[in-house]
Amino acid sequence: MALKLHGIGFSTCTARVAATLYEKEADFELVGVNLAVGEQKQPHYLAKNPFGQVPALEDGDLTLFESRAITKYIAYKYSGQGTDLVRGGEEKERALVNVWVEVESQHFNPAVAPLMSELLIKPRVQRLPTDEAAAEAHAAKLDRVLGVYEERLSKSKYLAGDHFTLADLHHIPYLYMLVRSPKASLLTSRPHVNAWWEDISARPAWIKAAEGMKFWGAPVS
Amino acid sequence: MALKLHGIGFSTCTARVAATLYEKEADFELVGVNLAVGEQKQPHYLAKNPFGQVPALEDGDLTLFESRAITKYIAYKYSGQGTDLVRGGEEKERALVNVWVEVESQHFNPAVAPLMSELLIKPRVQRLPTDEAAAEAHAAKLDRVLGVYEERLSKSKYLAGDHFTLADLHHIPYLYMLVRSPKASLLTSRPHVNAWWEDISARPAWIKAAEGMKFWGAPVS
Repeated sequence: MALKLHGIGFSTCTARVAATLYEKEADFELVGVNLAVGEQKQPHYLAKNPFGQVPALEDGDLTLFESRAITKYIAYKYSGQGTDLVRGGEEKERALVNVWVEVESQHFNPAVAPLMSELLIKPRVQRLPTDEAAAEAHAAKLDRVLGVYEERLSKSKYLAGDHFTLADLHHIPYLYMLVRSPKASLLTSRPHVNAWWEDISARPAWIKAAEGMKFWGAPVS
Repeated sequence: MALKLHGIGFSTCTARVAATLYEKEADFELVGVNLAVGEQKQPHYLAKNPFGQVPALEDGDLTLFESRAITKYIAYKYSGQGTDLVRGGEEKERALVNVWVEVESQHFNPAVAPLMSELLIKPRVQRLPTDEAAAEAHAAKLDRVLGVYEERLSKSKYLAGDHFTLADLHHIPYLYMLVRSPKASLLTSRPHVNAWWEDISARPAWIKAAEGMKFWGAPVS
């Protein structure tokens, strides 16, 4: 039975999981959740994710939520096929994957998510004005984080080492939005971060997942 | 060679790792980092953690940072001893551990960390006034998160199921601060959350790790 991914294509967290499923060559069905009518807050969806957010994954009688937990589940469940996203056979490599997965979660995401909310989601989806002062504060935080990435990526091809892993993949959806925002230069002005982005965003799995993200338009040139 | 944990006892992230080491009965040496003089921002420490935060862990030539990555490394490295904190042998249980580890990271921590900064760290460490409006906003967010926990813990003894795991342990340091703050009732007013807290905070491993946290005083009665 194919996995069921409940979500919506233009959501970063749904796209994170979809990209992982494509990397692992796992069959799945995308079951749409209608955010426009608040379906994610209705009882039938809250039974899948009590926080009322997309995505959720159903695998038979197992229901999971939180995109970063779902990607790990998929990476281990399909360990024998597709890209090795967790380097599970190598204790030290796996540890470094986990370090940079946490960096995304604790440093990158808390800066980029509210920045994209201000710069893209408020004006284009919510029809609200951008809070320019808040946007600048989030951008300054992201600038510091990407400064550390520039140094790291000057020494290793991918964040956790020589291989593309979940540590890189987890960043892709918000980087995709960032290069479509007025703050794209935070990425494009950094040679190593930009080369890493060009590499990881050209992966066939991401190109498939990004079909759902076209809502966000073209990159800023 | 014993592991070296670089950090400071009263730091929640250091205590998270220390509790994990005690649960796994792993030998380690705590190497103090002097936050009062900004040692965590000096080059010798930035070489261990480029974000300049405690803790970092050294295991021979491997250096790791981010407390939630370090706890996973320890849990797998010492899989043959101490408490099984990841349920690694059971695919579905392990998946649920990861879900609730992510809930801590994405929902609980982003609410409780800034709340404790306002209520305890600003007045007691930084000699700054609490921003009462910010504190109330963070408290409202934490209230919603703990509402979901109350429902979850009415159905299962621990967050991920029948067993104490990293999903519970990761919460302990900030819950320890919360019950010492003016917002303790967010926890103590919820019967199932409170019973869970009484259970997990009485574990011998936490009692040892909490030695370093005594700085924060006694619980609000």
